[in-house]
Amino acid sequence: MNTDLQDYSHKRFNILTGEWVLVSPHRAKRPWQGQNEAISNEARPTYDKTCYLCAGNTRINGEINPKYKDVFVFTNDFAALQSDSKSFNVNDRLLLAQSETGICKVICFSPDHSKSLAHMSPSEIQKVVFAWQKEYAVLAKNPNINYIQIFENKGAVMGCSNPHPHGQIWSQSTLPNEVDKKNTQQLNYYNKNNSSLLGDYLAQELEKQERIILENDEFVVLVPFWAIWPFEAMIVPKKQQANILEMNDNDTLQYGEAISVITKAYDKLFNTSFPYSSGIHQAPTDSNENKHWHWHMSFYPPLLRSATVKKFMVGYEMFGSPQRDITAETAVKMLRELL
Amino acid sequence: MNTDLQDYSHKRFNILTGEWVLVSPHRAKRPWQGQNEAISNEARPTYDKTCYLCAGNTRINGEINPKYKDVFVFTNDFAALQSDSKSFNVNDRLLLAQSETGICKVICFSPDHSKSLAHMSPSEIQKVVFAWQKEYAVLAKNPNINYIQIFENKGAVMGCSNPHPHGQIWSQSTLPNEVDKKNTQQLNYYNKNNSSLLGDYLAQELEKQERIILENDEFVVLVPFWAIWPFEAMIVPKKQQANILEMNDNDTLQYGEAISVITKAYDKLFNTSFPYSSGIHQAPTDSNENKHWHWHMSFYPPLLRSATVKKFMVGYEMFGSPQRDITAETAVKMLRELL
Ligand SMILES: O=P(O)(O)O[C@H]1O[C@H](CO)[C@@H](O)[C@H](O)[C@H]1O
Ligand SMILES: O=P(O)(O)O[C@H]1O[C@H](CO)[C@@H](O)[C@H](O)[C@H]1O
Repeated sequence: MNTDLQDYSHKRFNILTGEWVLVSPHRAKRPWQGQNEAISNEARPTYDKTCYLCAGNTRINGEINPKYKDVFVFTNDFAALQSDSKSFNVNDRLLLAQSETGICKVICFSPDHSKSLAHMSPSEIQKVVFAWQKEYAVLAKNPNINYIQIFENKGAVMGCSNPHPHGQIWSQSTLPNEVDKKNTQQLNYYNKNNSSLLGDYLAQELEKQERIILENDEFVVLVPFWAIWPFEAMIVPKKQQANILEMNDNDTLQYGEAISVITKAYDKLFNTSFPYSSGIHQAPTDSNENKHWHWHMSFYPPLLRSATVKKFMVGYEMFGSPQRDITAETAVKMLRELL
Repeated sequence: MNTDLQDYSHKRFNILTGEWVLVSPHRAKRPWQGQNEAISNEARPTYDKTCYLCAGNTRINGEINPKYKDVFVFTNDFAALQSDSKSFNVNDRLLLAQSETGICKVICFSPDHSKSLAHMSPSEIQKVVFAWQKEYAVLAKNPNINYIQIFENKGAVMGCSNPHPHGQIWSQSTLPNEVDKKNTQQLNYYNKNNSSLLGDYLAQELEKQERIILENDEFVVLVPFWAIWPFEAMIVPKKQQANILEMNDNDTLQYGEAISVITKAYDKLFNTSFPYSSGIHQAPTDSNENKHWHWHMSFYPPLLRSATVKKFMVGYEMFGSPQRDITAETAVKMLRELL
C-alpha cells in the first residue's frame, strides 16, 4: 500500500466523473465542536396508522394503499417530474432552459413499518430488485423516458420525510449532470480500450485487495479509491452489464446479499439505523447501444465519527471540491471488521 | 416574463459551470413531514470566554489571540492543506492521485462574538474586504499557490463549529473542480466573443429586471437564472474585474454595502440568523493572464420555507442533478420585499 496516501494531503481522481476529491488524512483527529445530529434509536411499530406508506392506509391525495405483502409501487403524489407537462424551450442569449418531463414513483420495500433493508433477508431484498427491474423495463419502453434514476434516501438527516422503508424512481427525458459525466468517461474509455472502465477498475482492485469490503460470486462491494463520503461504498457486478435488466435470477439474489451485508455493516458501525442516500447508475434508455455502460450502485452515508457527528459538505466543498479526512483505506478496514 | 418557467418542470443551464438544475415549480406546495432544524434565536454575549476566536482567548494549540479591534487572521490550527506536506504522485493504471499543498487561514470578521456580517455596517464589512485583499495579495505571490478560495460557513446547519463571526481562506496549488468548470466556461466564451461571460449576462439581467435584488453604483446583487439553493444570490461587480485586488476604495465600500444589504434581507426572511455558505470565485493566481475571469461572490443558503425547514440535496440531487421547487423569480420577489 502507498503510505503517502495515508499521511499527506492529496487529491484523487474519480475515473467515472472526471472530477477530484481532496483528502486530508492528518485532519482526522481534529476535535468536533459543531452541530450534533438528533438520533432516534427508538423502535418503530410494525404498523403506524398515521404513515401514508403502510398497507391499507390513505395517502394525502385520498388514494388507499392496497394490503400489499412485500413490495408496493405507486406514482409519487408530489412528483418533481410529470409526463403531461407542457413542452417549451427558452433560448434567449444567456438564458437557456428547456422543459423536462418524466415519471416519478415511490417504491415501498416492505409493508413492515419498522424495517429497513438492513433487516431484510437477501431473498426479501431480491423482491425489491425484481420491482426495480420491472419498473425499469416498463419505463425503458416509453419513448419520452431516456434515463431512469433509482434511489433511496434513508434517515431524517438525509431529508427522508417518512421512516417507512421506501425508495424512489425518477425517470426523465434527458440525462442529468452526474449521469452525463459518467456516460462520457465510460464512453471515452471504451472507445480507446474496447473494454469496460469499471470492469478494468474492478480487476485492479481485486488484485490489490486494499479497498474490497466483500465479494460474492457475482458482485464486489468496495470503497472506491475516489470516495467522497466517509463510509461511501459501491456495489459492482463482476460481469459487465449495462443495466439491471441483464441480471438473471442468481444475479439478483447475489445482489440482494450484497445489499444486505453492506447495510447490516453500516448499522453496526455506529450502532444506529445508518442514514444514507443510495442510487443506481445505469445505461440511459435512449436509442444508443450503450455498450460502454457498466451499472453500479453507490451508497453515500453522511456519518463521520458517531451516530451524531456527520460530515458537512459546505463552504470549501461547495465552492471548491469535495473533501474528506479519513481515507478510503481506513474506512474499508473499519467496515470489514463488522462483517 | 416567460410564465412557462413558473408553471412547468424544466431544467435551466448554468452558463458558468456548464451544468443543469431541475426546476419543479408545481411542487412548491408539497407538505413537509420530514426533519426540522433546531434553531437558536438566543442572543449571544459580545464576549464568550470559551470561544477560541474571541480576542485574548487561548486556542486549542495554546496560542493566544491578540486583543484585536476589527479583523484578525491566523493560520488554521486544523488545516486541510499544509505548505510543508510531502510531494508525490500516484499513476497506477486506474488509480490516479497527486499530492496537494496549500495554506488555510481563518479570518475573524469582528471581535464581537454576538455579531454576524448582517449586523455590521458597510464600512465595517469593508475592513473584512481589505483583509481578503491583503491575504489574496500575499498568497498570490507564493509560487506554490495557484488558487485561493475565500468562503464562510455560517450557522450550525452549515457545519460551522463556532458562532463567532468568521470565514476561511483555503489556498492550494491546483484548481478545484468548481473553479475549473467556471474557468473553462468563461475562457470559451471570452475566446469566442472577446467579452466577459458574466458581464454580458449582467447586461441582459439589468435589461430584464426580473432577477435583480439590488443594484448600487458598482455592484449588482441578483438571483442567478440557474440558482440551485432556494434563496441563492450572487454579487457581481459591474466592471469586469478578474479578482478582488482590482477593486479601488470606493468599490470595496460599495461591495461592503452589497454584502450588508443581502445578509440583512436574509435575516429578515425567516426572522432568524440566516445560515449559508458564501464564497468568492475569482481568477487563479497561476501564470496565465486570466483576462476571461469576472470575479463574483455567491451565497448558498439551505433554508426553504422557515427557520426550521431546509432543502435537502440528497438522493436525486446526488445521483442526478440539483433540483429546486420555488423558482428564482419567486425567490427574488420575496427578497426584494425585505429591503
Ligand atoms: O473548518 P471547519 O469550520 O471546522 O469545518 C467546516 O468547514 C469545512 C470547509 O468547508 C468542511 O470541510 C467541514 O466539513 C465543515 O464542518
Ligand atoms: O421526495 P421526498 O422524499 O419527499 O424528498 C426528498 O428527496 C428528494 C429527492 O432526492 C429531494 O428533492 C428532497 O429535497 C428530499 O427532501
